[in-house]
Amino acid sequence: MERIKPRTLSGFMELLPAEQMKMEAIMAALRESYALYGFYPLDTPLIEASEILLAKGGGDTEKQIYRFTKGDTDLSLRFDLTVPLAKYVALNYGSLAFPFRRYQIGKVYRGERAQRGRFREFYQADIDIIGDGKLDIVNEAEIPSVIYRSLTKLGLTRFVIRVNNRKILNGFYAMLGLGDRAGAIMRTVDKLDKIGPEALQELLITGETALTPEQADEILRFIAIRGGNAQVMEALEAYRGRNTVFDAGLEELAAVTGCLADFGVPETHFAVDLTIARGLDYYTGTVYETTLRDHPEIGSVCSGGRYDNLAGYYTDKALPGVGISIGLTRLFYVLQEQGMLSDSLPTAPAEVLVLPMTRDVAFAARVATALREAGVRAQLYTEQKKFKAKMSYADRLGFPFVAILGEDELAAGKLSLKNMKTGEQQLLSPEQAAETVRRAIAETAEEKPIRG
Amino acid sequence: MERIKPRTLSGFMELLPAEQMKMEAIMAALRESYALYGFYPLDTPLIEASEILLAKGGGDTEKQIYRFTKGDTDLSLRFDLTVPLAKYVALNYGSLAFPFRRYQIGKVYRGERAQRGRFREFYQADIDIIGDGKLDIVNEAEIPSVIYRSLTKLGLTRFVIRVNNRKILNGFYAMLGLGDRAGAIMRTVDKLDKIGPEALQELLITGETALTPEQADEILRFIAIRGGNAQVMEALEAYRGRNTVFDAGLEELAAVTGCLADFGVPETHFAVDLTIARGLDYYTGTVYETTLRDHPEIGSVCSGGRYDNLAGYYTDKALPGVGISIGLTRLFYVLQEQGMLSDSLPTAPAEVLVLPMTRDVAFAARVATALREAGVRAQLYTEQKKFKAKMSYADRLGFPFVAILGEDELAAGKLSLKNMKTGEQQLLSPEQAAETVRRAIAETAEEKPIRG
Repeated sequence: MERIKPRTLSGFMELLPAEQMKMEAIMAALRESYALYGFYPLDTPLIEASEILLAKGGGDTEKQIYRFTKGDTDLSLRFDLTVPLAKYVALNYGSLAFPFRRYQIGKVYRGERAQRGRFREFYQADIDIIGDGKLDIVNEAEIPSVIYRSLTKLGLTRFVIRVNNRKILNGFYAMLGLGDRAGAIMRTVDKLDKIGPEALQELLITGETALTPEQADEILRFIAIRGGNAQVMEALEAYRGRNTVFDAGLEELAAVTGCLADFGVPETHFAVDLTIARGLDYYTGTVYETTLRDHPEIGSVCSGGRYDNLAGYYTDKALPGVGISIGLTRLFYVLQEQGMLSDSLPTAPAEVLVLPMTRDVAFAARVATALREAGVRAQLYTEQKKFKAKMSYADRLGFPFVAILGEDELAAGKLSLKNMKTGEQQLLSPEQAAETVRRAIAETAEEKPIRG
Repeated sequence: MERIKPRTLSGFMELLPAEQMKMEAIMAALRESYALYGFYPLDTPLIEASEILLAKGGGDTEKQIYRFTKGDTDLSLRFDLTVPLAKYVALNYGSLAFPFRRYQIGKVYRGERAQRGRFREFYQADIDIIGDGKLDIVNEAEIPSVIYRSLTKLGLTRFVIRVNNRKILNGFYAMLGLGDRAGAIMRTVDKLDKIGPEALQELLITGETALTPEQADEILRFIAIRGGNAQVMEALEAYRGRNTVFDAGLEELAAVTGCLADFGVPETHFAVDLTIARGLDYYTGTVYETTLRDHPEIGSVCSGGRYDNLAGYYTDKALPGVGISIGLTRLFYVLQEQGMLSDSLPTAPAEVLVLPMTRDVAFAARVATALREAGVRAQLYTEQKKFKAKMSYADRLGFPFVAILGEDELAAGKLSLKNMKTGEQQLLSPEQAAETVRRAIAETAEEKPIRG
């Protein structure tokens, strides 16, 4: 038979089983965290009509999109989870109750240039809260709590949720008479981390923003405002009363920072950061970025913001919302590269490998069944191999326990439960074994997928 | 702004939130059941190189496939989970330990003619056990146990796992000197349920199989063998010794039926059925179908079998395996149509809706946070609406509890927990409320997504 060399497309992540177990643990933790806040899980098609996905049109998106025809239908693979959400909400407006909270963890597709750490198929893990006409500011204040709990649950400890408000930026630039150049200025200021304040000042003067030295100074002073929440808010108060948009933004920011402690977010993990604007044009209020303290080079691992109009391309209903997104595949890749995935998270496919040493598989089947009835994951291994090969299989897959069933065990109706870590071996009934394993599971249940 | 009418492609299932919650419950139950048997979760790309997916080539598959180019790469969307598994195992052969058990619940794509109840994007929920060179028969005996536990966990009660063995069929037809026509005969016999025994006999004689009346009689007598396992095995024993393939199949069938009780499968839910052959050519031993007693018209909801060579198109390694597949999207659709999805499964996005009646959202945030800390899913609702509108939101989404926070509650640092089913309302601390809710959750935890 002519054979075809098996391969997986470049830019498509496909994990080995143990790594997949870690990815599953991450996704399960996110699902659980999101659900704690009352977000519905949602699932939308990977394929949509191109006219739907490209309603906004233009830009890099259109170049990167996977677009094709089937029959005479012009189809595209989704490139994010936001556009399908917009379609979903517009389409099902009459059947949904608002605010509508949903999370979605799903694959999206972008035909980026293939390079290490860049993916063409990748998971996004999104949450959004959509209002009907209006959406209370408290929803924006709650988002840092979702981020904090989710990342903490994953095992991350040293991260900062950085928050800004577009109204503050827009209002501030309007104060300086630079309202028409606000977008260009934000794009330039976004380079601060990369080029430093001096080069930024130069660029603000000589670049597309064409500011006067005084204006550039003013901006640099503004974005240099730092410190604890109280300090930052106080510094911002000095600008109050000069622009209504700025003042509105300040009120919103005060509402967000004011609720943090009540929402369980420690101030150590939060910072107002006036340099953040987020590239996307549709953010209109609070914006979020989350960076790892020890790995700022990764950039933001969880970003989003408030938008005034989710679905303007599909409906005349005003649907304001707030949402965040985690680029899960890239995050996983980076954590793996940085050695930040936990080694102690169990990655075996079950807790117990049941190893019959005799041909009496009926007894082995009964033992495996009894363990499963008791909620213990058990794999039955009946291949005709030497004992050493069987134990090596157990080792290789990292089973925490092996149930050995020899003649003696069969005669006693018991099993020898071997703890693979300690080497300890006990003759137990299936029920006793299940209890022992359950206790051990409970001890590792709090094991987190990421080493913070 | 010019608006585009939102729509979802025909043949693509997109559920409303409450229905999605039921689908999630079904998928969670399957994941849990599969994991109990030591199957790894696996995740492979939706897109593969066309040469990989079409290695086998030809047939309906090629016509239905979603195939397109991106740049100069010929790509296809996967049309099942088996071919990607074959690629995965061939590609990662050196990194896997065998037997390799994996489950995968994922979407697949087939451009079928659009019609009610037919889907172009649909979930399959597959498990497979792959051996390296050999695979013990006990793995085949274990599959009915996986099916039984999974379907029971979903809530199905009245179903039958029907089992046959291709070797028995091949051997039997060889006995009659019809080995060369075995495939055609199996395809014809497969029509039995639809056309009945008389028309089948006629068709066996006049159709492509061109049998003599005596041969047709012999076949009809054979496939009419029914009854309990013991009865059927005894009837089959009468054919032993005339064909080695038949005898081997009989041994295998005996091994499968002999372990059922040990694997916890009641005989009421199992039947040897000699009419089952499964269409796919690559099944070589045990084959499985599962039908609902009250809805035979649905056909098999869980099917599969033993194959000798998973990945012959990609590798010269012999990789025998056994697997089953559930067509989850179609099953969900049918259950919905039949009114078999449970109405008592909770479909609210959280257990508690936290409703502040004052503008003190800080207290509301603390209450929601305390509930979440205690593991209770809580949604905070802060929109400026009348009390009636707020309660109507709670009703519409089906929250089992509402936490009302008025002036009195605020003063007392407590909340009024209203049980939406009983109407009972209690003034409780957040911790007491969490405890009350947790007890209520525990009571509905065993609620199953399907009414059997």
